[in-house]
Amino acid sequence: MGKKIVIIGGVAAGPKAACRVKRLMQDAEVTIIEQDTLFSYGGCGIPYYVSGDVSDEAELRSTSFHMVRDESFFRDAKGVIVKSGTRALGIDRKDKTVQVQDVASGDKGDVPYDVLMIATGSRPFVLPIPGADLDGVFTISDLHKAIEIKDRIAKGKVGKAVVIGGGAIGLEMAEAFKDLWGVETAVVEFMPQVLPRIVDFPLASMLTKHLRDNDVDVFLGEGATEIIGKDGKVTALKTANRTIEADIVIMAAGVRPRSEIAVDAGLVTSPMGAIVVNERMQTSDPSIYAAGDCVEVMHLVSGKKFYAPLGSLANKEGRVAGDNMAGIPSIFKGAVGSFIMKAFDVCIGATGLSLEVALAEGFDADVALTAPADRAHFFPTEAVVCFQMVFDRRTRRVLGVQGFGPMGDGISARINAAAAYISSGATLDDFGTLEMAYAPPFSAAIDTINALAYVADNLCDGRLRKVSIESFLDWMDDFSLEEEWVSLDIRHPQEAAPFVEKFGKDKWIAIPYNEIRERFTELPHDKTLIILCDSGTRSFEIQSFLDSEGRADSLVLGGGFNMLRHIGVDWYPSK
Amino acid sequence: MGKKIVIIGGVAAGPKAACRVKRLMQDAEVTIIEQDTLFSYGGCGIPYYVSGDVSDEAELRSTSFHMVRDESFFRDAKGVIVKSGTRALGIDRKDKTVQVQDVASGDKGDVPYDVLMIATGSRPFVLPIPGADLDGVFTISDLHKAIEIKDRIAKGKVGKAVVIGGGAIGLEMAEAFKDLWGVETAVVEFMPQVLPRIVDFPLASMLTKHLRDNDVDVFLGEGATEIIGKDGKVTALKTANRTIEADIVIMAAGVRPRSEIAVDAGLVTSPMGAIVVNERMQTSDPSIYAAGDCVEVMHLVSGKKFYAPLGSLANKEGRVAGDNMAGIPSIFKGAVGSFIMKAFDVCIGATGLSLEVALAEGFDADVALTAPADRAHFFPTEAVVCFQMVFDRRTRRVLGVQGFGPMGDGISARINAAAAYISSGATLDDFGTLEMAYAPPFSAAIDTINALAYVADNLCDGRLRKVSIESFLDWMDDFSLEEEWVSLDIRHPQEAAPFVEKFGKDKWIAIPYNEIRERFTELPHDKTLIILCDSGTRSFEIQSFLDSEGRADSLVLGGGFNMLRHIGVDWYPSK
Repeated sequence: MGKKIVIIGGVAAGPKAACRVKRLMQDAEVTIIEQDTLFSYGGCGIPYYVSGDVSDEAELRSTSFHMVRDESFFRDAKGVIVKSGTRALGIDRKDKTVQVQDVASGDKGDVPYDVLMIATGSRPFVLPIPGADLDGVFTISDLHKAIEIKDRIAKGKVGKAVVIGGGAIGLEMAEAFKDLWGVETAVVEFMPQVLPRIVDFPLASMLTKHLRDNDVDVFLGEGATEIIGKDGKVTALKTANRTIEADIVIMAAGVRPRSEIAVDAGLVTSPMGAIVVNERMQTSDPSIYAAGDCVEVMHLVSGKKFYAPLGSLANKEGRVAGDNMAGIPSIFKGAVGSFIMKAFDVCIGATGLSLEVALAEGFDADVALTAPADRAHFFPTEAVVCFQMVFDRRTRRVLGVQGFGPMGDGISARINAAAAYISSGATLDDFGTLEMAYAPPFSAAIDTINALAYVADNLCDGRLRKVSIESFLDWMDDFSLEEEWVSLDIRHPQEAAPFVEKFGKDKWIAIPYNEIRERFTELPHDKTLIILCDSGTRSFEIQSFLDSEGRADSLVLGGGFNMLRHIGVDWYPSK
Repeated sequence: MGKKIVIIGGVAAGPKAACRVKRLMQDAEVTIIEQDTLFSYGGCGIPYYVSGDVSDEAELRSTSFHMVRDESFFRDAKGVIVKSGTRALGIDRKDKTVQVQDVASGDKGDVPYDVLMIATGSRPFVLPIPGADLDGVFTISDLHKAIEIKDRIAKGKVGKAVVIGGGAIGLEMAEAFKDLWGVETAVVEFMPQVLPRIVDFPLASMLTKHLRDNDVDVFLGEGATEIIGKDGKVTALKTANRTIEADIVIMAAGVRPRSEIAVDAGLVTSPMGAIVVNERMQTSDPSIYAAGDCVEVMHLVSGKKFYAPLGSLANKEGRVAGDNMAGIPSIFKGAVGSFIMKAFDVCIGATGLSLEVALAEGFDADVALTAPADRAHFFPTEAVVCFQMVFDRRTRRVLGVQGFGPMGDGISARINAAAAYISSGATLDDFGTLEMAYAPPFSAAIDTINALAYVADNLCDGRLRKVSIESFLDWMDDFSLEEEWVSLDIRHPQEAAPFVEKFGKDKWIAIPYNEIRERFTELPHDKTLIILCDSGTRSFEIQSFLDSEGRADSLVLGGGFNMLRHIGVDWYPSK
């Protein structure tokens, strides 16, 4: 018998590493220690199990060829021993043993190792508020919880649900409650937007509107202060502003690395408790590897370590750990934080840094927005998509890309390409010529991602001057904020007319795009023109022309009305 | 008035450059010289106009905001002069003038320039065979031809169509004839596969099967030898093997650069006649730029110039030319040849080099195949996709990626990411950790592209030994080709049983995946085992195990039965 490889944790990174190292060293004795009895499951599938899209929890624990990944599967098919229902209590690095305890019997023992891997994952953050321990308050921490939640819904015990946390898991759970079961659902998010730090205000606002359009209540900038119960069961959630009735409360307020065993063993961890590893997924003890939600990894844009608890990364890190445990020097360079989620009929994706994070990291960051058709505009299935690019003005490096559009793979098609290019340090100029596969059913000749880079290029070089959507919306709510601003609506006269009528020629001038060269002298000299079109493209052309005529005081609303329509505003003229 | 910018050609690169340079230098006088009266159109949309997906040809000449891009549009909205119906006869580089002729009147004149751009595009290659000039024989060269073809179909004059050429345009035209109009359609391709040089045999075969499943006849390895007519009208096409009746024949046998005017002016052109330009799209005369289908560009993988007549590249090149004509030193580094097309219910995409081309270019090229689910296998909308990666064994660089799957953006989502990464010189190791945006509705935790890189990694390092699909299919047709081969089918016994029954235990051994570790001693010692599963993943695991047991004589069929099912074989046991 060869080396003893012991892996603590059996959800994602652990099993991946175990099977990889076994394939590479068939004579190794590979053992997974897992405290749970349900393991090796697709945790990201839990919302879809709860919703009913996935009918049986066993599907989340099955291979693509429909075998359940239980102890006998790992033994027979993989040659890997799984000690399930076994808790790892501690690591003796000198003796190279893991102290374990059988969860059911309480019996203790030692498991010796030559090489150890820690894949203990994460645990949900439980808000320290009164009532967090009431019956009906759940975190999404394991399959048992998921099974119990679904069971309650299926039995008709859940009429009203509140989700604490507007991150991906919280919003996916909200959709599961609402879409398939018709449960009255509310989301409470402490920050002023959903998906904080992942996407910025414009796209987050579009998602919020779509959730509300689908009858999910979304309360932003409201922290949960107390969970109220009766007879030990949850009945409502309190925030600073309201009390929301609830039969069930989901706490989806983020996760924290589950790394106590590493800390106790004296391994180096980050301030937030994530295990520190090198590119080979090795901890500060060369005999101990770690991967998955319990580690921190390098961010390939910021160049700093960050915490990225994602199932997709856990699997990739697990394979690299498996390689290295078998003596193959594979490396995991780091991550760019690619993200995507479905919400009813839309999806939203991102990669790299958001503007907010990029600024906080010290970049000279700015954003470009555009909202073009996702394929040839003459192709019948075309739809508007909204994209944002974050870039560094000084280096022209692309720092991040965010996209919002109809449910499907059209957003992935751009986000994945951006992730690959951002990982490679690509600049605006690279993105401008990035060769997206083109045919009319799939893309425009100038794809969204190229168009986005063109906007950013024009911004970066000072050829395009913009107003942010936030500032424009503020002004539309209160014209007194910028007395000298006036909208210049260059869309078709029929589109612009209701706005002129509602806001007056003082605040809303309408001259069609193709008449500006003839009629620009009609424009006032003492105003800042806010140029508006559907996506921002025509507005830039008009700005260039007005500049050349010495009318330099204009700003373009990037993404134009296509963005506004998706964000939703209450000042749209009624028909 | 500023500089005189003259652009010859008004379809894609020309108008793009014209509008860009005008935006950058509003005082420039920008003139497009275009021999046709219909211009600035999406030529790649022609098949969708013929099919009826696009109802009116004017849509192909319209902006996304529904304005037709005619002379007055360019004048009023863009400030660009279009001299349509005007042919450029020659360039006097010394005097800096273009000699032009009005096509209608025959009147000649001179147009002076400070900076000139040639964007004359390409012309279809007309096969030098008898009957090529018969009525009813068309190339897809301009909108007039498209209008005439559609008119004939709409009037019921086309019952039978033959397309010469199995490239993208030919196949898109075949679909247009068959799918929307029910025309009896045949495709004749001189090479032994469709999409030659773009994709390799496995994926080309899948596309051929899908075309045939949709009642398009596909004749491969057959050159058209003669077009037969009666009373001046086409009646049939002859090949070496057959005569195919036809009311219409589409010649889609590739295009050639339309560069006579550049050659006559003494500009440097390639052996095939493409205009040679630098990264700034400048020809051998610094005052003359060129872009689009008339130029050659750098291939970012081979490092050699190549001819890439694609509308998407023409637009990007046009923008770079426009920048440089205005004094902004933008560069167009080159291309990787990204490609995608729809065919009925499927799509097929590629980027980088095919295996055939990579070998011809002198790479130590090999391929990896896999056929996994395109999203979490437990998610309801999952489907099998088939992918191939071409890589260099010596440098581990990824040279190309090809994908086939259901119609949608799922193939683009991988091809675009691959294009970005290949452009950056990424290796197998980079692709293994490429961070595809993950959530179960969009991807597996280990995305197709990562899985593909894993297979290639195992192949490259000699851990995985494979049999090619071509060799396996040859053997299945004639077992005597490899007397010592025997299939080892590790799928579920119910899946394998009909094969064992049909081919006998001598040629088809069935032991399920999860029983091999127990039962491997049943395997013969004197045979080469061809290990078969659904996608190839399990087969590799079994090969690793058998190797460790000293049973090293085995080969894996990459992509497994998922590939075979899509390619279609006649030896499948009937139920």
